[in-house]
Amino acid sequence: MKHGSTRDRLLATGLRVMHAQGFNATGVQDITQAAGVPKGSFYNHFDSKEGFGAEVLGRFWEDRTARALNVLSDESLTPLARLKAYFAAKARAEPTKTFDRGCMIGNFSAEMAGQSRLVRDRLGAVYAAWTRLLAACIAEAQAAGEIRNPGDPETLAAFLIDAFEGAVLRTKVDQDGRALARFEQLIFDSILS
Amino acid sequence: MKHGSTRDRLLATGLRVMHAQGFNATGVQDITQAAGVPKGSFYNHFDSKEGFGAEVLGRFWEDRTARALNVLSDESLTPLARLKAYFAAKARAEPTKTFDRGCMIGNFSAEMAGQSRLVRDRLGAVYAAWTRLLAACIAEAQAAGEIRNPGDPETLAAFLIDAFEGAVLRTKVDQDGRALARFEQLIFDSILS
Repeated sequence: MKHGSTRDRLLATGLRVMHAQGFNATGVQDITQAAGVPKGSFYNHFDSKEGFGAEVLGRFWEDRTARALNVLSDESLTPLARLKAYFAAKARAEPTKTFDRGCMIGNFSAEMAGQSRLVRDRLGAVYAAWTRLLAACIAEAQAAGEIRNPGDPETLAAFLIDAFEGAVLRTKVDQDGRALARFEQLIFDSILS
Repeated sequence: MKHGSTRDRLLATGLRVMHAQGFNATGVQDITQAAGVPKGSFYNHFDSKEGFGAEVLGRFWEDRTARALNVLSDESLTPLARLKAYFAAKARAEPTKTFDRGCMIGNFSAEMAGQSRLVRDRLGAVYAAWTRLLAACIAEAQAAGEIRNPGDPETLAAFLIDAFEGAVLRTKVDQDGRALARFEQLIFDSILS
């Protein structure tokens, strides 16, 4: 097995396991076992579980960014329609069908922001990038007259992200999609109208 | 030391430690050590760490309910002013000055809803009770003409709670109160206007 492939397999497995169980409930052995590699090999590739967690979060975000860009840069849609399509796609895709995983960004914010400076800094970068993506589309929709709310696009985008993460958090408790439906309805009927 | 006092001390200590560190990062020994009681005594009072966590969450909610009722039943204020005072007080009080703890309800939703049926059911009851408290005040404000949004009070209340929890989550990453200021501004300027 090549060096690269073990490392990749550990990251892909870690993403799956840490998304489902959270950071603290996942041991290094859970990851190596699920990846089918010897426990000792983990530390050939990563300095610590903390550093591994930060990389896993980076992977999660890369995957989400690629999907977001697909929707948010779809020029066949108006800017507001892109925002609606983006959140509708997230509402369908983000939680698993059982609604028990939530979003890794929110999960790590709850669990790790107070414990790890490294993960907190990575989360800060993720939120900033996410805010920029949405703010650009909100600004376009304002310029096109589709959103009459004249608020600062970055502030609106940051609020959307926080409210969305809160809704995803709630789906884990309710084990259904009602919180996401509420979010879409109220955001597009009031804040982004 | 009386039976009751050890149990109470464990719960009070557990609330403080689990609020700061989360459930999975807190061992039974962390709690007994911080409470100054022998490790073995934990299991004289609680069947499991899971059951203990559910009780700790119940205590957190009782404390928060008492504070909420103080504000939400303050007849010297109009219903809308009560809602504003409630969230302003939460924005000042909920996160510690360092903004690193967040809200135990959100933290447990992220970390435990997928892991423990017991904690998830307790969280469901907490969200339902919290929703009823806010919905009653929203309905009063609608009846008084202070809130023109004719939406279902329970739906509006549930949205507020989710968005608030998302904002609190964000304060843990930013380590400041901007997300709460955004929440208050946008909620009272759009959704509850």
